[in-house]
Amino acid sequence: MNSSIFQLEMKVRDYECDAQGIVNNANYQHYYEVARHEFLEKEGLNFYELHTQGTDLVLISIFVKYITSLQGGNQFICTIESLEKQGIRYFFNQKIIRKSDLKLCSEARAEVVSVVKGKVSIPKILDDSFSKYL
Amino acid sequence: MNSSIFQLEMKVRDYECDAQGIVNNANYQHYYEVARHEFLEKEGLNFYELHTQGTDLVLISIFVKYITSLQGGNQFICTIESLEKQGIRYFFNQKIIRKSDLKLCSEARAEVVSVVKGKVSIPKILDDSFSKYL
Amino acid sequence: MNSSIFQLEMKVRDYECDAQGIVNNANYQHYYEVARHEFLEKEGLNFYELHTQGTDLVLISIFVKYITSLQGGNQFICTIESLEKQGIRYFFNQKIIRKSDLKLCSEARAEVVSVVKGKVSIPKILDDSFSKYL
Amino acid sequence: MNSSIFQLEMKVRDYECDAQGIVNNANYQHYYEVARHEFLEKEGLNFYELHTQGTDLVLISIFVKYITSLQGGNQFICTIESLEKQGIRYFFNQKIIRKSDLKLCSEARAEVVSVVKGKVSIPKILDDSFSKYL
Repeated sequence: MNSSIFQLEMKVRDYECDAQGIVNNANYQHYYEVARHEFLEKEGLNFYELHTQGTDLVLISIFVKYITSLQGGNQFICTIESLEKQGIRYFFNQKIIRKSDLKLCSEARAEVVSVVKGKVSIPKILDDSFSKYL
Repeated sequence: MNSSIFQLEMKVRDYECDAQGIVNNANYQHYYEVARHEFLEKEGLNFYELHTQGTDLVLISIFVKYITSLQGGNQFICTIESLEKQGIRYFFNQKIIRKSDLKLCSEARAEVVSVVKGKVSIPKILDDSFSKYL
Repeated sequence: MNSSIFQLEMKVRDYECDAQGIVNNANYQHYYEVARHEFLEKEGLNFYELHTQGTDLVLISIFVKYITSLQGGNQFICTIESLEKQGIRYFFNQKIIRKSDLKLCSEARAEVVSVVKGKVSIPKILDDSFSKYL
Repeated sequence: MNSSIFQLEMKVRDYECDAQGIVNNANYQHYYEVARHEFLEKEGLNFYELHTQGTDLVLISIFVKYITSLQGGNQFICTIESLEKQGIRYFFNQKIIRKSDLKLCSEARAEVVSVVKGKVSIPKILDDSFSKYL
């Protein structure tokens, strides 16, 4: 966790839990997205402003591993461990770690491309901001 | 129910339930919205197309009463019982009824205005479609 | 806002916005719920623990007024302005205020009862915690 | 699609779309879950009843590929193409196909185990129901 390039502290909201009393799987994907967008914002890239300017950051695949379940009220840290670039695609390697015992709850690998006016494009805007993390 | 002007049959999705094993309160508002939008579509008014044309139907208040809880897997009918018009505002009176025993689960009263290019406007587009229901 | 009995600072998550570019109406109800549960927790009442002990705090009605729309990335304060008691029911008067300009975005009035082992009951557990706010 | 072992017809709900006007990524995971649960129910296995009996079907990983975006109002078919078994784990291969033009919108591979009273177990209950699909 010490080596991660971004960390966001969050807390489970009760409505995010399902009838099993644990956070519903799809909500982890929300958490990962929130962390990515906050990271972008820290780098000066606002997701919504980019959209209104014609550039969309589009998730083209995600792999999520569920290891330990989060429960109502749990505090956790959602990280970006590292960034990788392959051609015009960016990969975000992410983790969710429970705060109370630092237990690893989930891992994800999100693949993102830059879409400019509807066409997958060279992610110049991301290159400028992310080169220092590659 | 026989006298309602629109009925939509739906089924609870497991992820909509919270740790109490029942549908989370905010999801009833989703159900009511889905029924209103399907009703609009039946009347030739597509919510998303209207938005891209500059007209937004905006909810300005809603009152929701929770009577009997829906559980995972329950089938239900979400209705529009009646429409009312007051000045430039429309009221949708809605119900949610469990299918298995016709028990009333929830009632709502949603207040909607028409916003054209950012300004609350005379809802001509709604008047044309809804006059037959008033 | 100065006189509110509880305030929770939150930030809109991009996935909470809909195609109109603004926070979907049902999400305000989520925000209000999160604030009530955090307030309960501050008072020593954990929503999920209460549930596992057989006591559920159940929303029986809510009125929500939408005044100014929140957008992606907006920071806001979700408050509990005051508590009222009528018989065995509690009312939470709440507000959502945008942080940047202190604009009132929404108001709500949530009606809650205490259900013990499936029966609406005298909310002793709430009375003990809330009497100082009445 | 003809060879899939289960198909569920669904329709995008407007609140599932985000500010880009397309279905938010996490919602595809909801769709895939709904299809799996409906398939289980068709096979006589109700997700919520199983839970109250002490058996949970737990997702331990999912890979989702996003190919063509669904938009507000789109009708689509969420399938289970095939089931695979590896040791005590089951894999559900799934697709989401837009109804209007049969375009492939998304593919997923969900890995599920059976947890009985908190312990990952031999999924006897699944073996009985699923053997005919392996």
